[in-house]
Amino acid sequence: MFKKLVFPAVLLCAGTSHADEGQWQPHQLPQLKTELKRIGIEIPAEKLADLSRHPMSAIVSLGGCSASFVSDAGLVVTNHHCAYGAIQRNSTPEHNYIANGYLAKTRAEELPGGPNTLVYVTDKVENVSARVLGAVKPAMTGRQRHEAVEAAIKSLIAECETDKMYRCSVPAFHRGLEYYRIRQMMIRDVRLVYAPADMIGNFGGDIDNYEWPRHDGDYSFLRAYVGKDGRPADPSPDNVPYHSKDFLVVSAEGLKNGDPILLAGYPGRTSRYKLPSEIRDARDVAYPAKVAEIQADLDVIAAATKGSAADEVRYASVAKGLNNVMKKTQGLLDGFARKDIAAIKDVQDAQFRAWYAAQPKVSKTLLAELDAAIAADIALSNEEFGLYVATNSDLLKSARTLYRLALEGRKPDGEREPGYQQRDLAFIKARLTRLEQSYVGAVDQARYVASLQRYARLPAAMHAQGVDALLPAVDAVPALYQHSQLGDTATRLGWLGKDAAAIAASDDAFLKLAIKLNDVVTALEERRKEVDGNLERVIPQYMQAVIAWKQSQGKPVYPDANSTLRVTYGTVSPYSPKDGVTKGPFTTVEGIVEKHTGKEPFNAPAKLLEAIKAKRYGQFKDPVLGTVPVDFLTSADTTGGNSGSAVMNRRGELVGLNFDSTYESITKDWYFDRDITRAIHMDIRYMLWVMKEVDHADNLLQEMHIKYPKQ
Amino acid sequence: MFKKLVFPAVLLCAGTSHADEGQWQPHQLPQLKTELKRIGIEIPAEKLADLSRHPMSAIVSLGGCSASFVSDAGLVVTNHHCAYGAIQRNSTPEHNYIANGYLAKTRAEELPGGPNTLVYVTDKVENVSARVLGAVKPAMTGRQRHEAVEAAIKSLIAECETDKMYRCSVPAFHRGLEYYRIRQMMIRDVRLVYAPADMIGNFGGDIDNYEWPRHDGDYSFLRAYVGKDGRPADPSPDNVPYHSKDFLVVSAEGLKNGDPILLAGYPGRTSRYKLPSEIRDARDVAYPAKVAEIQADLDVIAAATKGSAADEVRYASVAKGLNNVMKKTQGLLDGFARKDIAAIKDVQDAQFRAWYAAQPKVSKTLLAELDAAIAADIALSNEEFGLYVATNSDLLKSARTLYRLALEGRKPDGEREPGYQQRDLAFIKARLTRLEQSYVGAVDQARYVASLQRYARLPAAMHAQGVDALLPAVDAVPALYQHSQLGDTATRLGWLGKDAAAIAASDDAFLKLAIKLNDVVTALEERRKEVDGNLERVIPQYMQAVIAWKQSQGKPVYPDANSTLRVTYGTVSPYSPKDGVTKGPFTTVEGIVEKHTGKEPFNAPAKLLEAIKAKRYGQFKDPVLGTVPVDFLTSADTTGGNSGSAVMNRRGELVGLNFDSTYESITKDWYFDRDITRAIHMDIRYMLWVMKEVDHADNLLQEMHIKYPKQ
Repeated sequence: MFKKLVFPAVLLCAGTSHADEGQWQPHQLPQLKTELKRIGIEIPAEKLADLSRHPMSAIVSLGGCSASFVSDAGLVVTNHHCAYGAIQRNSTPEHNYIANGYLAKTRAEELPGGPNTLVYVTDKVENVSARVLGAVKPAMTGRQRHEAVEAAIKSLIAECETDKMYRCSVPAFHRGLEYYRIRQMMIRDVRLVYAPADMIGNFGGDIDNYEWPRHDGDYSFLRAYVGKDGRPADPSPDNVPYHSKDFLVVSAEGLKNGDPILLAGYPGRTSRYKLPSEIRDARDVAYPAKVAEIQADLDVIAAATKGSAADEVRYASVAKGLNNVMKKTQGLLDGFARKDIAAIKDVQDAQFRAWYAAQPKVSKTLLAELDAAIAADIALSNEEFGLYVATNSDLLKSARTLYRLALEGRKPDGEREPGYQQRDLAFIKARLTRLEQSYVGAVDQARYVASLQRYARLPAAMHAQGVDALLPAVDAVPALYQHSQLGDTATRLGWLGKDAAAIAASDDAFLKLAIKLNDVVTALEERRKEVDGNLERVIPQYMQAVIAWKQSQGKPVYPDANSTLRVTYGTVSPYSPKDGVTKGPFTTVEGIVEKHTGKEPFNAPAKLLEAIKAKRYGQFKDPVLGTVPVDFLTSADTTGGNSGSAVMNRRGELVGLNFDSTYESITKDWYFDRDITRAIHMDIRYMLWVMKEVDHADNLLQEMHIKYPKQ
Repeated sequence: MFKKLVFPAVLLCAGTSHADEGQWQPHQLPQLKTELKRIGIEIPAEKLADLSRHPMSAIVSLGGCSASFVSDAGLVVTNHHCAYGAIQRNSTPEHNYIANGYLAKTRAEELPGGPNTLVYVTDKVENVSARVLGAVKPAMTGRQRHEAVEAAIKSLIAECETDKMYRCSVPAFHRGLEYYRIRQMMIRDVRLVYAPADMIGNFGGDIDNYEWPRHDGDYSFLRAYVGKDGRPADPSPDNVPYHSKDFLVVSAEGLKNGDPILLAGYPGRTSRYKLPSEIRDARDVAYPAKVAEIQADLDVIAAATKGSAADEVRYASVAKGLNNVMKKTQGLLDGFARKDIAAIKDVQDAQFRAWYAAQPKVSKTLLAELDAAIAADIALSNEEFGLYVATNSDLLKSARTLYRLALEGRKPDGEREPGYQQRDLAFIKARLTRLEQSYVGAVDQARYVASLQRYARLPAAMHAQGVDALLPAVDAVPALYQHSQLGDTATRLGWLGKDAAAIAASDDAFLKLAIKLNDVVTALEERRKEVDGNLERVIPQYMQAVIAWKQSQGKPVYPDANSTLRVTYGTVSPYSPKDGVTKGPFTTVEGIVEKHTGKEPFNAPAKLLEAIKAKRYGQFKDPVLGTVPVDFLTSADTTGGNSGSAVMNRRGELVGLNFDSTYESITKDWYFDRDITRAIHMDIRYMLWVMKEVDHADNLLQEMHIKYPKQ
């Protein structure tokens, strides 16, 4: 084990040249005090660091998305695309809330969000590095090390979750240099309050995804409900709105070019500290393969659903998700092509290695071990990608989940694989249930046939060890679907809680295939543990050295995103995607009319167009633009997971919702380039204007605390 | 004949809302005095109006392009694409001046520009409306009227051209409301002095044509030579540089966003006063047909030249010309689709007609006559388009020219058709000679076969009366080419000056076809005269009324462009092609590196890239941009023919060369939309910088009078 892990002074000297880079842990903010003041933030950094105080205690997670409370009665505002599941779930051909939007005029009209609509309120963050890493002994193999860390984490979680109202996690920071235990209250009765028509909330659709100029009113409202005792409870008509002591005041006063903003939310994953070899693998091997795979899968879905509106709808959100991943991955590849990040990292890496070599008392073998560990990780990732392609069937995935759950169920809860513990059951059930909304047997079969064909053509390095011999022949696939009942939701759910022996006795074709594959999949997982264990041993030492090195240059150090609460800041600013062209920082409602074609995804509702054409701007007219702004750009450092994040002005008032970033910014997950990186936010004035002039959501406008501009 | 034609006060009240619209006749400028002052122009309007004084006496025409003198020794600066013929003519595989550029280090090294490289110096402009229109009698038919006008014009020209050093013309203004006689000194020994490599002078090529951002160093230098007596002379080693008393001072001080500019040159043709019916015909019939025809022709050329580098080169400039026309026509169609100009004109037309109806003492039948005349024009234009397609063979065109010339040659010179008079012989010869550079028998044959096939598919209204029966069958076309010697330049030129009877006795297949077609072509021309005569009778009355109507609203009135000298003004300004995006006003040399791919048309010379990368900006670094600007945008009102026009600062110093306009601006030929219309200019600092840092054209930098910024 390596030495003392805590770097109390790590962040002292954030250079202004990287002013907007950084997804900071709230407790780091006091160290950025000067910088925050310099850009004009008025909230004291110490206050921002305190999760129990305003405004951070108003910031919540939806699990994959970010959101914030905007009233003391649990009213939550987030992106339309984050509330999409809840909207879709309540939509019927007769009451098409996707197309027409939905507005609960009273609380009684608020609709159940379903099992996947959850609100997480982070209430405690503790540094538990010592406890996690204390379990590690120097002599351990990679796998032993990995299991020791995992066991320590599981026990930290279990101890935290004794109170059922909490959901806890112990994510690694700096790739395992530090561990924090995050305690969140998980509210599981969350209702749909208001969503605009999707041709407001998703105007531009997939075509505009990652694009600017943007005209998306990507917002929706949910409400958190709890039991009468104030504690999270299963959905019930008896529940009452959660009393959110803290909430954000909404400011309709607006921002202008150059204004500072704060952004708080739950960014998912970044790779800012990757090595050149990792970038080259992503650029040359992993990402091209991923893009090709997803594109092929999307083509199959499109062909298989063509002609059936019902099938198209079932696969709409699957396709949306795949498209999103593909565009993002392709964007990374385009970014790699535009800017040679590997070469930039080569230079940094060489500088770092030279610096490291000159340090006294450091391991002389660390960097060689690091390179070996990363090479092993890359090789194994190739096989894992192959396994993904080889098992790309929703029925097979369900079968694998069911059998694995049964196997793990034989062990004491604490010894089960993460993801198959008692605490995970509700999620597994929700996932197996939700499949109903996005499954069509013939489509799944077509996808699986095509996936197996593609798998056969993958290079040898992407064939997962031992898997090939166990896979069905392509022409045997139809028989699998004929002889499986897992497409039926009741049957599928019926296997939950069954013993592994019972499953083994089944003649369901996909359960049989899952059982057949189980050993090789488990073997792959064991190898992953060994590889991860080695990474967890070497990378934190490397990161510790990198931090010391950066610190020696006065450069900021923040951990990669890991779905935990972070704060970033920036300024409203345009950017130049190429010489002679400037984009942003604002779009206006007139741009909606420009883009409107009458065809989705550019089919703005008539009532919206009418309000624009009549120039009924009301109090939401920007004095500079002379009209209502729609979306805007800032230099804030965001990534996936930041969807729905509160964009706050210098006083911490809500002025926007983050929902995307520009295409040129996608590479920021690997390398933050201030010149080109811009997050896309919806201007809160647009939301308020639609609520007032188009959707007449006066009840919600009343409920929120809104600061209007002085006339 | 209609009443008094002169409107002395027509322009008094140019509204500021149209500040940049207008291609003004120089003599109109004093009436815009206030406006010129308001935007910051320091040269007195009276001085600008005087063609014999600086700076207007430094502005010249190249016939189709504009240019200006930049030294007192006849040094002319224009666009690279305007000097392209001269460059191409001197290029050989061994001395590829297109690819490598050319710099004459001494006058002795200056290369002959060839018969099509001419410099026209406008020296006198007289209003001759009374003499032209005095020839017209009310009872005349359209054809009689047309011929009377033509005869008057011919005699005005002949009288002016008694001095052989002048070339004169009598173009119509306001579609025949006024006529001016323009006297130009035509200098016919013009030499190539300096051209940058085409990957500077045509960087971006056809791909960037009409596009922004732009990085084109579209400049070249020519020199006008005259006889020792100072009068224009045939090319000869004995000639001496023309003593250009006036020339533009070049300013390297640069412009910034918002600065005013003046632009002087020879805009070709605009259609700002067209009626809605004419716009609809262009939009729905004529332009779509034209685009389809040119695209098909280009496809045939590409297929027929494929595989032969030599053939590709021969057709490169033909393809470039066709591409340019097509992109412009398509741009107009796109513009019509983006903005419903016909609908805008409908409103204006209805307002005009209402106003007209309320005027006392006006013709009650004028508007009906106007509509009928325009309908006849549209119908005949369709047939003329058909004839163009049916005769799209370079050999046939040559044969038609030769035979027609011989027929006209039988008449006294004053009675010959314009274009076939004594004064036109040199041009005809040049054209017939130049064909050698862009003709390949097999390609011409392929084009003609395909054209005849397309002609057969055109709608009936586009089949020219009497033509179909005379056309060769498609499978007879190869025989035409076998039995014609017109592809041989000496043979082709040998027919010049031969009598029509001699031509009629020839068994050259294309001469025979030309003779066969002659009657129907002549009949079409006679019908054109009738139609034009009617238009010339009706349209000026209409324009007179339109001018009075616009005047009553305080709106500016300037004549449509007609290849005569005009002045326009505007400001350096970006534009927003769509909500949330801003383009311009400047590009920089760094953008060249961004665009550089190493493949044409984005293959910047290594020495250019090197100078950029080394940041050797010297005195040409813009203080705001921090680097050397390349191209910039202004709101000036330009069109084709303005290529090479001097862009001058408030003091009349040369700061740029006009060379293009943005794609969104193309509709300006029909409707000037200030928000979207931008002309593209090369920043003179880029030219000077390339001359200094890349091409070392120190001799020319010495010769010009350059004002450098204060350090």
